[in-house]
Amino acid sequence: MSVPHPLCPLSGAEIQAAAQLIQTSWPTSVSLRFKVVTLSEPAKAELAPYLDAKDRGLSPTQPDRRAFLAYYVRGTDLFHEAIVNLTSGKVESNIKLGANVHGNVDYDEAQMVEKIALEDPKVLAEIKKLELPEGAVLPGSDGVNDDERLYQVFLYMRDPNNSAEPDSNHYAFPLPILPVVECNEYKIIRIDILPTGADNTIKPLSPYKPKPANEYIPESQNLRQDLKPLHVTQPQGPSFTVTPVGETGNVLEWQKWSFFVGFNQREGMVLYNVKYDGRPLFYRLSLSEMSVPYGDPRHPFHKKAAFDLGDAGAGATANNLQLGCDCLGSIQYLSGVIADDRGQPDPRENCICIHEQDAGISWKHTNYRTGRAAVVRSRELVLQSIITVSNYEYILMFIFNQAGEVTYEVRATGILSTQPIDHELDKVGTPFGTVVHPGVLAGHHQHIFSLRVDPMIDGHTNQLVYSEAHKMPRDPDWNPHGTGYEVVDTVVDKTSGLDLDFDVNRTFKITNPNSLNPVNSKPVAYKIAAPPFQKLMSDRDSFNYKRAEFADHNIYVTTHRDRELYAGGWYTNQSRGGTGVRGWSQRNETLTPESDIVVWVQFGINHVPRIEDFPVMPVEILKVHLKPVNFFDKNPALDVPPSQQSFNKSTLVQSSKAETDGCGCEASSSKL
Amino acid sequence: MSVPHPLCPLSGAEIQAAAQLIQTSWPTSVSLRFKVVTLSEPAKAELAPYLDAKDRGLSPTQPDRRAFLAYYVRGTDLFHEAIVNLTSGKVESNIKLGANVHGNVDYDEAQMVEKIALEDPKVLAEIKKLELPEGAVLPGSDGVNDDERLYQVFLYMRDPNNSAEPDSNHYAFPLPILPVVECNEYKIIRIDILPTGADNTIKPLSPYKPKPANEYIPESQNLRQDLKPLHVTQPQGPSFTVTPVGETGNVLEWQKWSFFVGFNQREGMVLYNVKYDGRPLFYRLSLSEMSVPYGDPRHPFHKKAAFDLGDAGAGATANNLQLGCDCLGSIQYLSGVIADDRGQPDPRENCICIHEQDAGISWKHTNYRTGRAAVVRSRELVLQSIITVSNYEYILMFIFNQAGEVTYEVRATGILSTQPIDHELDKVGTPFGTVVHPGVLAGHHQHIFSLRVDPMIDGHTNQLVYSEAHKMPRDPDWNPHGTGYEVVDTVVDKTSGLDLDFDVNRTFKITNPNSLNPVNSKPVAYKIAAPPFQKLMSDRDSFNYKRAEFADHNIYVTTHRDRELYAGGWYTNQSRGGTGVRGWSQRNETLTPESDIVVWVQFGINHVPRIEDFPVMPVEILKVHLKPVNFFDKNPALDVPPSQQSFNKSTLVQSSKAETDGCGCEASSSKL
Repeated sequence: MSVPHPLCPLSGAEIQAAAQLIQTSWPTSVSLRFKVVTLSEPAKAELAPYLDAKDRGLSPTQPDRRAFLAYYVRGTDLFHEAIVNLTSGKVESNIKLGANVHGNVDYDEAQMVEKIALEDPKVLAEIKKLELPEGAVLPGSDGVNDDERLYQVFLYMRDPNNSAEPDSNHYAFPLPILPVVECNEYKIIRIDILPTGADNTIKPLSPYKPKPANEYIPESQNLRQDLKPLHVTQPQGPSFTVTPVGETGNVLEWQKWSFFVGFNQREGMVLYNVKYDGRPLFYRLSLSEMSVPYGDPRHPFHKKAAFDLGDAGAGATANNLQLGCDCLGSIQYLSGVIADDRGQPDPRENCICIHEQDAGISWKHTNYRTGRAAVVRSRELVLQSIITVSNYEYILMFIFNQAGEVTYEVRATGILSTQPIDHELDKVGTPFGTVVHPGVLAGHHQHIFSLRVDPMIDGHTNQLVYSEAHKMPRDPDWNPHGTGYEVVDTVVDKTSGLDLDFDVNRTFKITNPNSLNPVNSKPVAYKIAAPPFQKLMSDRDSFNYKRAEFADHNIYVTTHRDRELYAGGWYTNQSRGGTGVRGWSQRNETLTPESDIVVWVQFGINHVPRIEDFPVMPVEILKVHLKPVNFFDKNPALDVPPSQQSFNKSTLVQSSKAETDGCGCEASSSKL
Repeated sequence: MSVPHPLCPLSGAEIQAAAQLIQTSWPTSVSLRFKVVTLSEPAKAELAPYLDAKDRGLSPTQPDRRAFLAYYVRGTDLFHEAIVNLTSGKVESNIKLGANVHGNVDYDEAQMVEKIALEDPKVLAEIKKLELPEGAVLPGSDGVNDDERLYQVFLYMRDPNNSAEPDSNHYAFPLPILPVVECNEYKIIRIDILPTGADNTIKPLSPYKPKPANEYIPESQNLRQDLKPLHVTQPQGPSFTVTPVGETGNVLEWQKWSFFVGFNQREGMVLYNVKYDGRPLFYRLSLSEMSVPYGDPRHPFHKKAAFDLGDAGAGATANNLQLGCDCLGSIQYLSGVIADDRGQPDPRENCICIHEQDAGISWKHTNYRTGRAAVVRSRELVLQSIITVSNYEYILMFIFNQAGEVTYEVRATGILSTQPIDHELDKVGTPFGTVVHPGVLAGHHQHIFSLRVDPMIDGHTNQLVYSEAHKMPRDPDWNPHGTGYEVVDTVVDKTSGLDLDFDVNRTFKITNPNSLNPVNSKPVAYKIAAPPFQKLMSDRDSFNYKRAEFADHNIYVTTHRDRELYAGGWYTNQSRGGTGVRGWSQRNETLTPESDIVVWVQFGINHVPRIEDFPVMPVEILKVHLKPVNFFDKNPALDVPPSQQSFNKSTLVQSSKAETDGCGCEASSSKL
């Protein structure tokens, strides 16, 4: 059997082999619930020289294949992590993790908990108090963590008038009943009743009052009839090539870019060994974590603070993308495979789509003396994944362009997490949520993302630098008119958390102090252009703050350590904090021109829901750009062919005829 | 003759008639140089009821047609402005303007000044000191203001090795000689020599040292060969309709949107009477002004602070857009007409292009229980204009989508304004500029834009409100876990300048306190999402600050006055300040629920040039979004037809075959 490339995600066979090796380390009577079976990437000290040698055409020794596993002994809270060497067929480590370390949600478990909650007699007794109409169906649950390993099962019902429609939007019908399920025997340990008024009073459950539905499915809409088709075609095919590597890996090449595409349960898409025109830029790029804390202070809503990657997984929740629905144009799909709870392969078909898009003009100049315009359009390469984390969707994209820029784009969509509110408050609202439908409150919440950037700008010795623009003081000789300003660079010399400051135009750059621009001798660099956001609203003594160990700064910089991949720590589910990037930065290590750094870019939104965000939310778009700064010696898109009609084949549209306007005036075709 | 709609730009015949009416008010021996001949829009008190009546199908009385003119008596500094009533054929006002009020640059004048400067014996004598090689051609000038009405003529030369190429990039060859021309007799009053070192020392001119060129034209590049065509087609035509109104106006309708499109010398595109589904949103939208101050404190660079709209005009400098070059897909063009310096029509053909574009996913939700995905793509309508202001290009767009959002997008591109720097500083640079080519410095500068939003959110009585998110204090009963936060709205009750504050998520909204959302009773609103920027760097006593009367705050709010259209005042050329939005806001008027307000949105960049911005700059993109907040009663894009392959006709791409990767591993097509 050939050996896969060291960055290939585990194949189905490797997943099975890894799970089997762990299973056989236990008595056969012990049943395991696997939470994660995934590639354990080779150490950078081994992999970086390997990739470099490969790219130089050499045949270096292949690192061993290893799997990382996290699993429970079923029926217990015994949670383990293990490393298995697939090359040697040996278990290299297998340890039981300590108190307050919990595994992520898995699909089977979530489904099971939902079923248990809905069939429980005590829950049914509470639901009975609502006197729901005949035919009401209660399909919903959204697991949110408590202090123990517990599921809170938020209940909803379908529109009683349309309860046979399985895709009726139950988020328009939240119920005030919250069963709580523990995870050893999966029993209901209590049923919380939600506060539905202006304060935290828990009122006795009262009969259901009929109200309208709010559906998002197209057959419930009076659809627009006047939208004409728009097709994107590439008669000569796309400009990119995808080269499969092993069973599960892919190398993508496009417009001087090249990189390896991986996929795993937790981060979904991961890009490795990103180069432009053969020059190294990024060793590894991935979305590292996301925290979604809510602002309603009342029990049990204060516990709503999901970590969508650590708790659920961007790979585990990846949609099967459909041709002509989720992308437009000439599209190639990549598929992935993760492990299910039994340690068996669980395919994620079409979890990544790849296409090119036109992005408008890249650059233009018209010489007004000669009238000659030179114009080049911007073509972009998009790798897109879409994840469904219960109610919410996130569209996650890496976008490359011809000017040497990489953009990470997030689109937040899907359905707001809703809760019931007393009808008499519909017109009054609350300071911690927006009424989006009669009797339905959507709480204010934050989405805070962390993008992990492991750079190799012209090599692995990189530094973080920020530049600021400062007004020059008035000076009769030097700045007599008070117009001068200067730009000052500051090297970040300690691992730390740092913030944007638009008042001084603070711009973070990843530089290589050992590689200078041949024209102006400035260190080559890529700058980070990330949107500002309100940092975590929970106070510094809160669990939210302790757990979301990245949500308090725009930028973190740390030294590279192989295991430090996830900004909120390895195990976020009901985590106690102290295992993420804030803690790593507090090692307060010195950064030198020889350091190998990792940069963590945080961005997000404080989502104050609008009624327009219901029943499904128009995308909220966030973009992080990585752009060359004195890395090239001129505009790298200068050599893109000019934008010409012979190539673009656009169509001229004309008003069919001059029409009379309502006020009796007439159109004229006379020339001036 | 029929009467044009009151918002129709002046036709060619109207321009001629207006100029003629003014000319006949002078003795025939007096020759006039017209700077502006443009529509004088009817007063809002007259026009707003007119538009409303028209939209209700009535036949209101047509307001008189009026022209606004600004002109000089040739050979003098006698600058006038006039209002001509074209309906009655009478000059309604015609006044000479006071000291320090100057007219804008016009094309003929700029060309003439350039020619004068290049033919002047004193200038030629200075150039001779450079000992330029045989064949060097000096084509360049960029007029920048001084304290008098003067032109500074920055000189460049073409590549001496390629001087026959009229589109050789002369910005790579800036010369240190700056003739200054006065504007009565257009004579050179002095020749400044530029400082080229690290300080403000003026060195004797020394012989030219050969250096490489840096061309942007395609024939000078080794063009990429691997970019495949990408076509956008609309087999059933576009979804928009353009209805000509009179000779010069157009009404655009698309996906429930409707508005009137105007065009003038100063603002270029102007949108009026913007409605969605018949509901009023914006009375008038336009880019109001832009200031571009430079940070090099040395004479004469401190004077570089152009107002690209007031000094040059976004209509006057609009490009003639070419099919298949400047847009992609099915494109309709609109043309405009402005006045030349003789008061004759000067057409701007194809100055606006209109097309639709796919903008990715608009919303999506997958019901993970049923597996059913509902997904809708976002279609956008784009109105684009591109202006060339000497070296720089700005791509200016109004973009509409189906979720009720309007975006104003600016793309800055073109060529950096360059200046010579001594070669020995190439590797050292300066704190106020970046070396982008041997011997060429591109100074740090700002681009600060002001978008004028004259709202009519459900009517003309609008207020500016900002909402902020505040942490709740810890409280054992109410916020026991420190996780709570609340959102608080504040009504702006005085005309003022205001700023973003991301630390409290400050969000500005234009609300109508007299129109409440039917579901949650919140005042209907549109929020303003504008990117933060570093405010004007020039100090508060500087001319730049006094003149750029908008560049110091993210938002200004004023009461509506008909003449208050331009954030930097009516006449920006060498202005002394005091005539713009800062001054208007300082009237400190009370804003009530019955006020008719105008909101000015500032945004921009502090452009610290990268070498990648030369010889022509990849677009820097800025977007201002106007988004509904509790204006509708649900997601307005809910009724967009679902994204389906039958409609989108995408193409599946597959890797032609599994390929062997370099490390000897093989691809496998086995299924898991």
